[in-house]
Amino acid sequence: MLEKLKQEVYEANMQLPQLGLVTFTWGNVSGIDRQQGLYVIKPSGVSYEELTPADLVVVNLKGEVVEGQLNPSSDTPTHTYLYNHFPKIGGIVHTHSPWAVAFAAAKMDIPALNTTHADTFYTDIPAAAALTEAEITADYEGNTGKTIVQTFAKRHLDYEATPGSLVSQHGPFCWGETAAQAVYNAKVLEVAAEEDYHTLMLTRADSHVPQYLLDKHYYRKHGQGAYYGQNNAQSQTHAKRK
Amino acid sequence: MLEKLKQEVYEANMQLPQLGLVTFTWGNVSGIDRQQGLYVIKPSGVSYEELTPADLVVVNLKGEVVEGQLNPSSDTPTHTYLYNHFPKIGGIVHTHSPWAVAFAAAKMDIPALNTTHADTFYTDIPAAAALTEAEITADYEGNTGKTIVQTFAKRHLDYEATPGSLVSQHGPFCWGETAAQAVYNAKVLEVAAEEDYHTLMLTRADSHVPQYLLDKHYYRKHGQGAYYGQNNAQSQTHAKRK
Amino acid sequence: MLEKLKQEVYEANMQLPQLGLVTFTWGNVSGIDRQQGLYVIKPSGVSYEELTPADLVVVNLKGEVVEGQLNPSSDTPTHTYLYNHFPKIGGIVHTHSPWAVAFAAAKMDIPALNTTHADTFYTDIPAAAALTEAEITADYEGNTGKTIVQTFAKRHLDYEATPGSLVSQHGPFCWGETAAQAVYNAKVLEVAAEEDYHTLMLTRADSHVPQYLLDKHYYRKHGQGAYYGQNNAQSQTHAKRK
Amino acid sequence: MLEKLKQEVYEANMQLPQLGLVTFTWGNVSGIDRQQGLYVIKPSGVSYEELTPADLVVVNLKGEVVEGQLNPSSDTPTHTYLYNHFPKIGGIVHTHSPWAVAFAAAKMDIPALNTTHADTFYTDIPAAAALTEAEITADYEGNTGKTIVQTFAKRHLDYEATPGSLVSQHGPFCWGETAAQAVYNAKVLEVAAEEDYHTLMLTRADSHVPQYLLDKHYYRKHGQGAYYGQNNAQSQTHAKRK
Repeated sequence: MLEKLKQEVYEANMQLPQLGLVTFTWGNVSGIDRQQGLYVIKPSGVSYEELTPADLVVVNLKGEVVEGQLNPSSDTPTHTYLYNHFPKIGGIVHTHSPWAVAFAAAKMDIPALNTTHADTFYTDIPAAAALTEAEITADYEGNTGKTIVQTFAKRHLDYEATPGSLVSQHGPFCWGETAAQAVYNAKVLEVAAEEDYHTLMLTRADSHVPQYLLDKHYYRKHGQGAYYGQNNAQSQTHAKRK
Repeated sequence: MLEKLKQEVYEANMQLPQLGLVTFTWGNVSGIDRQQGLYVIKPSGVSYEELTPADLVVVNLKGEVVEGQLNPSSDTPTHTYLYNHFPKIGGIVHTHSPWAVAFAAAKMDIPALNTTHADTFYTDIPAAAALTEAEITADYEGNTGKTIVQTFAKRHLDYEATPGSLVSQHGPFCWGETAAQAVYNAKVLEVAAEEDYHTLMLTRADSHVPQYLLDKHYYRKHGQGAYYGQNNAQSQTHAKRK
Repeated sequence: MLEKLKQEVYEANMQLPQLGLVTFTWGNVSGIDRQQGLYVIKPSGVSYEELTPADLVVVNLKGEVVEGQLNPSSDTPTHTYLYNHFPKIGGIVHTHSPWAVAFAAAKMDIPALNTTHADTFYTDIPAAAALTEAEITADYEGNTGKTIVQTFAKRHLDYEATPGSLVSQHGPFCWGETAAQAVYNAKVLEVAAEEDYHTLMLTRADSHVPQYLLDKHYYRKHGQGAYYGQNNAQSQTHAKRK
Repeated sequence: MLEKLKQEVYEANMQLPQLGLVTFTWGNVSGIDRQQGLYVIKPSGVSYEELTPADLVVVNLKGEVVEGQLNPSSDTPTHTYLYNHFPKIGGIVHTHSPWAVAFAAAKMDIPALNTTHADTFYTDIPAAAALTEAEITADYEGNTGKTIVQTFAKRHLDYEATPGSLVSQHGPFCWGETAAQAVYNAKVLEVAAEEDYHTLMLTRADSHVPQYLLDKHYYRKHGQGAYYGQNNAQSQTHAKRK
């Protein structure tokens, strides 16, 4: 069942230790088949050294296990919530990467201070509100997804242009068109947090990049006018040929 | 004598350089056989490149060497003291991991500021009082264990729920049900110190997580209601199956 | 075409991940054949794992692609501008190395605070002015080169003695006699930024090195009187022989 | 000539990249044969990948090259000065390790704030005075040694108990009974600088360890009463045997 997707999600999970984004088993990646309404996710607490594609668990959009011997990630209800409310995403990743956690613990957004950030995230990366005691008691992992979705609604953020969020006191969640893209975004978020931390120590001036620089860098890589890389229609135009 | 335990303690010692927790020989792990009242510990000053399971030294709960050609870790009296006063622990580790040492030198607790911390440590990780001159002169290593035990008593801390401590001006000691679990806890302590350092620089607000979030994360992984991973009774329930 | 130069530029590009200067594809190196007026540059968005010398693109000093199936780096107009205005340089590198980006985002120069810096950069490394909206709209990548050249002119800096610059809000560009030398300079810039950051946190005193120490260290390695290494005329004199 | 010493000094040099103490060629180690009054040192500007024992240069205590095809380290006069004024040392190392350089640039001592430091350095590690213009012009490298020796004299420091120094605006020099011991001390200095930096950010309180803790840790490893490791007379006594 979903063998190709399992392979993709397996490879995306294995990127986490290679990119320095996880300690022990503190991370999980999922990827969805939108047509079947099923997603594939890492099992809970299995080490990356031992993980195989066959260990992955298949879950439906009610959060029920459809296939798999192992228990899915304990964060599965968060993934379910996000897949249901962000209908265009194809993959989700959660880590406890340390720079991101430092901002999440301080309940601070990761501000858009440079073009590294702007290439991937079109706005500040929000720190979604910490869960209340009632939310934690009722459905901790589901409400972890809910606080992200509510924060995006309240701030009028586009989840496609801002493909990730912190959850205050906890850590980062990212997403993307595929599981691999979600992991890429999680690495960008971690690097942006590291760079921002040092910038915020160097100066008390507001160092936000202006909107026109955000526009330039973000749209250099995304949308109809993108010309970064090899696969955009515009990149042929940008590369003037003699 | 205690061949299986020696192998376990050897492997736990070898985890220290792999997890980036030691420079040179600045760390040691022990593990105990409670039935025999004997524990196995790294020899003093032997490099991790050269260490073999046969080099480990067997010590009784009076702190006497029972087997082994090499001298045990110079911190052996600390291990003896902790095994005698924390009767449910099965392994102990001491390192000079740098983020933990930074907090120990500042005589500061590692505060519980995020869920990474809460997953493993149910409270702030205390900085036990620095030893007095009299304590150092009388029995330095033994009194290093004593200041930890006294700090836990004074603060009404449960050593099973807070499986580690700093010693002010010195560094971290951790413990657990096994030697491997103690090393796992030592890595969590180091990561928590790193994350907390950056959070404390980012904000002067009190960022302690509330008790209900500590409860949620700690008990998601520990005790009767735990549902993280594959081996808890509750994890089957948590993973709803269709 | 330009096979030897392609090999050199390929190797210089591959140094970027080895020196810890790039994440993903966020960097590019070029090298020029001044006699032919042609330069060789990394293709846009190709990963370092997949890059081969044959993938490199040949560009002329009007910025036109002369040879190559792939699109050149999206930063190609910056390279063209710099080659045209800094006539003695043989190689250029752009990265998003994190310490340099932290300073660029803060719009701060990397000050000359120690001899590590002085060995390679004879002055503070300037943070060139951020681009205006008009400059971004008109020709973003070309004007990125222009702000560097203008900053050097305004501050009366010698681009041979200060072989690199930050661009505010963005990141570092470095150059040198060859592509390999440019990459060397990019690593020095990153290390200097890391060291300066910590020095600036340790003290509020002005820690600039005096001009005579800059002179000593810079000219120990550069120019007629250089005596560092094996290839300088003066090094034989410096090494007194019995 | 001095083949055994060359091998030792070669291996000590190769420890520098393995311990993360050098970038490019920014470091050099020497070791001396006191009976012959000759020392062996790394050649100038040779990369660690290419270095062989046969490349090492033999120098006498007047600083003259006695054997070797290559030019010795440009810092050779510093080594000569230190060997002449610190008669009991057997090896010297100079690096530009980044935490040490951050303190040197700030002209700050590395204070004794924890036992990691006290195990190897019995006092604060001094930042020797920056060289004056006259000193730089007259004999830069020789006077680099002189400022260290003068600083030790002025502060009544014992170079055997404090086996290293910063030179303000420049970086660290360490020494020891052998070249290998000097490199060990250079790593301790770098780790102490890293830990101290973070402690100094965490608290404004004076965190110096008291003299009695310095005594305990330093003499646990050094002198007649040492009991750390396997080779001290006292370690047999410390390890009580049943």
